[in-house]
Amino acid sequence: MKERPKYKIVFIGAGNIATHLSFALQQSGCSILQVYSKTELSASILGKKLQVPYSTSFSDIDVNADVYIFSVKDSVLEDCIKEMPAVKGICIHTAGSVPLSVFNGYTNRAGVLYPLQTFSKNRKISFDEIPIFIETSNIKDEDLLYELSYLISKNVTVLSSDKRKYLHLSAVFACNFVNHIYELVSQVLEEQNLFFDYLLPLIKETAAKIEEMSPHEAQTGPAVRCDNSTIQRHIELLTDENKKKIYEMLSQSIYSLRINM
Amino acid sequence: MKERPKYKIVFIGAGNIATHLSFALQQSGCSILQVYSKTELSASILGKKLQVPYSTSFSDIDVNADVYIFSVKDSVLEDCIKEMPAVKGICIHTAGSVPLSVFNGYTNRAGVLYPLQTFSKNRKISFDEIPIFIETSNIKDEDLLYELSYLISKNVTVLSSDKRKYLHLSAVFACNFVNHIYELVSQVLEEQNLFFDYLLPLIKETAAKIEEMSPHEAQTGPAVRCDNSTIQRHIELLTDENKKKIYEMLSQSIYSLRINM
Repeated sequence: MKERPKYKIVFIGAGNIATHLSFALQQSGCSILQVYSKTELSASILGKKLQVPYSTSFSDIDVNADVYIFSVKDSVLEDCIKEMPAVKGICIHTAGSVPLSVFNGYTNRAGVLYPLQTFSKNRKISFDEIPIFIETSNIKDEDLLYELSYLISKNVTVLSSDKRKYLHLSAVFACNFVNHIYELVSQVLEEQNLFFDYLLPLIKETAAKIEEMSPHEAQTGPAVRCDNSTIQRHIELLTDENKKKIYEMLSQSIYSLRINM
Repeated sequence: MKERPKYKIVFIGAGNIATHLSFALQQSGCSILQVYSKTELSASILGKKLQVPYSTSFSDIDVNADVYIFSVKDSVLEDCIKEMPAVKGICIHTAGSVPLSVFNGYTNRAGVLYPLQTFSKNRKISFDEIPIFIETSNIKDEDLLYELSYLISKNVTVLSSDKRKYLHLSAVFACNFVNHIYELVSQVLEEQNLFFDYLLPLIKETAAKIEEMSPHEAQTGPAVRCDNSTIQRHIELLTDENKKKIYEMLSQSIYSLRINM
């Protein structure tokens, strides 16, 4: 068995993605040299978890790493890149919606490693099945980043920034908007003293169904049946204007996809 | 071990719910006497599957059953009840949004058995975990309907029509609207020649997360971070007005739940 490359890695950022990704890479045999966060508490928590040193200043960044992974909020990413000292290793970020070109002018060894998943701090996640999308500013680093990604997931794809932004947009719909609908539902049920947990098998099955059939085929409910009397009764049951508007708009959208076929 | 009661059942309707429910009840030892559907093809397919006689005329309904399960479209349910011959057995329907009172004037042994799940004809489903909500016009039949439901699910709750309609409304959000969002996403990805399957691990995790935390805690994404520049870029990427409007409305809704806390 070929020995896996043991990359030396510094993490810039200590949030949800940094936490999950650094842990997965460490478990896969990589050496995490250091964790940087401007927030000492975050830096120390992740440093302790990984049992590696942490830093809160860019002047202390270990310059001997092979890979620097910037996993910070999109809004501060460019500022972090600016403050970063000159290094020989490749600098990559993990943001779906930020183009590779954010590194332009700062390094000629840049890359992106975008794991398409939702990460929560207190929830364990297995990277095995997570699709990872990579991009590099030069082809040699593509091999390096592919190998690094392949250590934690067998689902690695090279993809341009232009395409990646559509994946990120899709993830907002499929994760953030879907979760928000769960939240609206939880409010409806709470008002009626009904348990949200009653819905869990339905939610699970709704997500599982589309592994076998297209969402178009899987669509059920009053809107796809043009059952206007049920739709009207539902809108009357809702107690706030926001939910009424969302119900109407999504029902109309479901219906319009059928008549326009 | 106490022998399970073997109810004699006639099904009025041969759609998705009738198919899954009749099969589960038969597997649990009940005797399906007959299947009725006004569409001969549907009646014969389900009859064949269950290996029981079928009928397309209410005049041929077997009057010796303990339970008559009306599992038809909401819009034709009352017409079916009207045409039904007089029987001694209990008549129940399976519709979440139709009150028990739909049987008023037709029978004094009425009930509802509402399985809170989405059913597709070509997808196997296990009833074990499906929450079933029951209601009867008299207390004696409540025991019967509880026992019958308990044969197929250990998650049975007595619930009034007034409460049940909110469950049905919630199911429209958590299943129909969520699936529609999957469909919108599938269009976005198709336009970019990206595989919808890339999203499956994210979709699965989004559904699984809320088994451990509330949807409010689970919320992530640009809207909850008030990341307006990402929101604006996403809206620009969308190619049709409908998706733009949905993106804006749901982002606004996510944001408003945070500022109103």
